[in-house]
Amino acid sequence: MKPYWMILIIFLYSFNISASEKDQILSIMQKQEVAWNEANLEAFMQPYWKSDKLKFIGKNGIKYGWHTTLENYKKSYPDKAAMGKLHFDVLQVEINQNTAFVLGKWRLTRTEDILSGFYTLFWKKIDGQWLITIDHSS
Amino acid sequence: MKPYWMILIIFLYSFNISASEKDQILSIMQKQEVAWNEANLEAFMQPYWKSDKLKFIGKNGIKYGWHTTLENYKKSYPDKAAMGKLHFDVLQVEINQNTAFVLGKWRLTRTEDILSGFYTLFWKKIDGQWLITIDHSS
Repeated sequence: MKPYWMILIIFLYSFNISASEKDQILSIMQKQEVAWNEANLEAFMQPYWKSDKLKFIGKNGIKYGWHTTLENYKKSYPDKAAMGKLHFDVLQVEINQNTAFVLGKWRLTRTEDILSGFYTLFWKKIDGQWLITIDHSS
Repeated sequence: MKPYWMILIIFLYSFNISASEKDQILSIMQKQEVAWNEANLEAFMQPYWKSDKLKFIGKNGIKYGWHTTLENYKKSYPDKAAMGKLHFDVLQVEINQNTAFVLGKWRLTRTEDILSGFYTLFWKKIDGQWLITIDHSS
């Protein structure tokens, strides 16, 4: 086999790995939308790193930890009406080995109003699972 | 030479590369503080990717491009008094090959007020230079 065939195969193989990693992350985020729209915050929170070192930066500054983040979501969105319908627009996904960066726009359509903003997420693949370790939402 | 020595040397070598990459980014950000505090926005903007694809997400949503970002800074901070004294607290730096993610807190001390918030930066090493390609500041 000629070397350039091998290079092509390695290239296509790495490209495919990367595409599939991106698909994994996009699929996780789609499941998050579904969970949110079923008012299931625990399911929505599954892809967040279950660690006290999880960082969530929102309108109230920086908060640490999975449980704190869940409790804060519950306080801000106490019922289905408050939660409304969530939609993520993913603008950019950058995957590098076991880390990923995602930039996007979120939109919450409720009976009374529409909220929207941007998010940047820093993901790590830990024990074979893509997990959000930092969420900066504004 | 025993194989485990080689592994140790490779490990220490990669660790050192990573540490030095982190130092490079921290040093760039220190220079940005100095430039800001000298009211030199052009110098402050040097580590931003000089591309129309640069993304800046701030209180007015997402804006594209190096020149637009500079113009927006000039509008928001027209003189030395408005610029005040900038300080970056770097909370986390994650480097993976040619990409880096930085989370931190910014603080602007002015005569009349103190502004503060958080930033997440997505850096790429392009032609040997670390450049900010996405800035999400809130």
